[in-house]
Amino acid sequence: MSLIVQKYGGTSVGNVDRIKNVASRVAKTKAEGNDVVVVVSAMSGETDKLIGLANQISERPDEREMDMLLSTGERVTIALLAMALNEMGVPAVSFTGRQSGIITDSAHTRARIKSIDGGRISQAVKAGKVVIVAGFQGITEDSNVTTLGRGGSDLTAVAVAAALKADFCDIYTDVDGVYTTDPNIVQKARKLDKISYDEMLEMASLGAKVLQTRSVEFAKKYDVPVRVLSSFHDVPGTLVTKEDSSMEKVVVSGVAYDKNQAKITVADVPDKPGVAAKLFNTISGSKIIVDMIIQNIGRDGITDISFTVPKSDLKTILPVIKSAAKEIGAADVVVNEDISKVSIIGVGMRSHSGVAAKMFNALAADGVNIMMISTSEIKVSCVIEQKYTELAVRALHDAFGLDKA
Amino acid sequence: MSLIVQKYGGTSVGNVDRIKNVASRVAKTKAEGNDVVVVVSAMSGETDKLIGLANQISERPDEREMDMLLSTGERVTIALLAMALNEMGVPAVSFTGRQSGIITDSAHTRARIKSIDGGRISQAVKAGKVVIVAGFQGITEDSNVTTLGRGGSDLTAVAVAAALKADFCDIYTDVDGVYTTDPNIVQKARKLDKISYDEMLEMASLGAKVLQTRSVEFAKKYDVPVRVLSSFHDVPGTLVTKEDSSMEKVVVSGVAYDKNQAKITVADVPDKPGVAAKLFNTISGSKIIVDMIIQNIGRDGITDISFTVPKSDLKTILPVIKSAAKEIGAADVVVNEDISKVSIIGVGMRSHSGVAAKMFNALAADGVNIMMISTSEIKVSCVIEQKYTELAVRALHDAFGLDKA
Repeated sequence: MSLIVQKYGGTSVGNVDRIKNVASRVAKTKAEGNDVVVVVSAMSGETDKLIGLANQISERPDEREMDMLLSTGERVTIALLAMALNEMGVPAVSFTGRQSGIITDSAHTRARIKSIDGGRISQAVKAGKVVIVAGFQGITEDSNVTTLGRGGSDLTAVAVAAALKADFCDIYTDVDGVYTTDPNIVQKARKLDKISYDEMLEMASLGAKVLQTRSVEFAKKYDVPVRVLSSFHDVPGTLVTKEDSSMEKVVVSGVAYDKNQAKITVADVPDKPGVAAKLFNTISGSKIIVDMIIQNIGRDGITDISFTVPKSDLKTILPVIKSAAKEIGAADVVVNEDISKVSIIGVGMRSHSGVAAKMFNALAADGVNIMMISTSEIKVSCVIEQKYTELAVRALHDAFGLDKA
Repeated sequence: MSLIVQKYGGTSVGNVDRIKNVASRVAKTKAEGNDVVVVVSAMSGETDKLIGLANQISERPDEREMDMLLSTGERVTIALLAMALNEMGVPAVSFTGRQSGIITDSAHTRARIKSIDGGRISQAVKAGKVVIVAGFQGITEDSNVTTLGRGGSDLTAVAVAAALKADFCDIYTDVDGVYTTDPNIVQKARKLDKISYDEMLEMASLGAKVLQTRSVEFAKKYDVPVRVLSSFHDVPGTLVTKEDSSMEKVVVSGVAYDKNQAKITVADVPDKPGVAAKLFNTISGSKIIVDMIIQNIGRDGITDISFTVPKSDLKTILPVIKSAAKEIGAADVVVNEDISKVSIIGVGMRSHSGVAAKMFNALAADGVNIMMISTSEIKVSCVIEQKYTELAVRALHDAFGLDKA
């Protein structure tokens, strides 16, 4: 008998019939002798519908109120799923983020979990109930409702699993596991049996939308075994777990891409100490994730600084950057939304050389120009013109032989 | 400068434009130098939509989960209204039932308010903010979400007004006040300038849907001056207040009707002490409101007991009544849904005689048969065949000269 946390996304609970299907799956897991805690998202489309309403009222709605609004989506789903289980004779109870003891900071619309008191969940589980937890939401210490940002339900699931010391955190999605790359682009993409936290982290942060980044970080920190599974087909998924020696033998595990980045260039920046620091201090105050920072070699006492940010944050960050640019005496701020980032990922890179060169060669062979490069221990990313994305992904998947196990 | 609690129902916040209109009205009241606390319902249609979802899952959904589900409707509206006010430069903050300190008993879907701690609202008001409170909902002492039943937002408004000792509780509706009867039936129906709590209570409980019954009881208990106003037209409404001497001069203030009652007859009940008590003890355990109880004169040691209940409660109460009927040795339970209740109401009845006779005469003159009669100090009600409802209401409005001030 295990304690299993299951998470179902918006598509899996997209209508009443699907909610009933989820209930059956939960009931089956319970009938097999497991304790089950379920985390659910809002029904697909609901969050966007609510955002639409808010945007009809304000271009930049008050963020505390946005959280009040968006948190309703998950509450609808937890109630309906609990009803469905009770209707099947499986005792179930729904808990909001607050009732689940999820305390966050007060960064509305992108709050971070500070602590979870799993007491109330544990108590209900011990009483034989399936507990349904609202994903994506928490509460501040002074009792305001917060949300965890897009994909936050994954984080809720992993955090609840960590707090309860669950045996598995099963993330049910509309794909049946983690693939070497997007199967919509590369037909020969192959499902991975397992992947390390670090690789998954790079995959997630680079736009493979299977798992939300912070949830993987959380899983890594608390060593929560996460399984990515299909909510529609009963097939083995992918286990996200600690790195082991078998993983290191594979140089590249996957190819990821991200079309949702924009490149911002702050042009003609005075090339002297402290200028970049001033710029990024200002930006970091806005809590927006900046990636791939590159500073050109200075000429004539001036230089350019480029970096990428999520496109969705452009509206928020551009005024900040423009005022910061003015302050540091830069000439111009140029935005390019027509880019994408392609990346190769693998823990094996640590012990293999020449990986980046092989990547650049593969791209060059297909005539893809590289605009920016960044590397970490286990990944190499290139920013390219967006129209080349699919071509580049296929070239890299081939070059590193990812179709073969 | 006054402290005013304003309540807007589902129609008044039925879409984004209407929410903006409400925001303008609130902003105007605030700009006139008043402190404003706003209570809102769910957008019209939303609650029914949620109930529809629940009913697709279960014929009798778990009531705790039903409350979790339904409480989301008001949360959407409070967030949107707070956004709209903030967008207009009027600082506003939304509070859920819990955040407003509304503690209820645990009778899910029809909870009663036990206490309100208005501290958090007061604090925000003192900080210059408009506070938007989610109507219809509260929280139990052990932290489960509850709802107050249909029309519960009126109750929230009055209860908040009482807790804050507000100068007025303004209930904005889609009518512009309390009328002598339903203007859709009687063209000559006249708007009342003021009405006593007791009269309003009878009007509300008898099916005049302007104010929810419990909210009027609450207003009476805590002496909250309630104004019924139109959310669409800027015209004087009706003040619901303490009885005064001018009110007593009017014998009948209004004619009410209610088509949503059903008549239940428990037939051939043994005519001995304690039997009726046993029956109604069982029913009262279900917390359903039973009205107009009539017991026939017994013959041959048996009798019939008839009473009315809201049609919407039939499904819940029938099994209870049937089992209770069996227990007390009754022969049969007969339901008649084809009835309606017409009533005349007025505090002046206390000091005038012959009112009931005048009512029966007026009905008889138009050939309306009376099936049941019940009276209180300030009202006389008759159950009649439903098809005669409009005829009866018009006859009574005429007979008591209600078109004349």
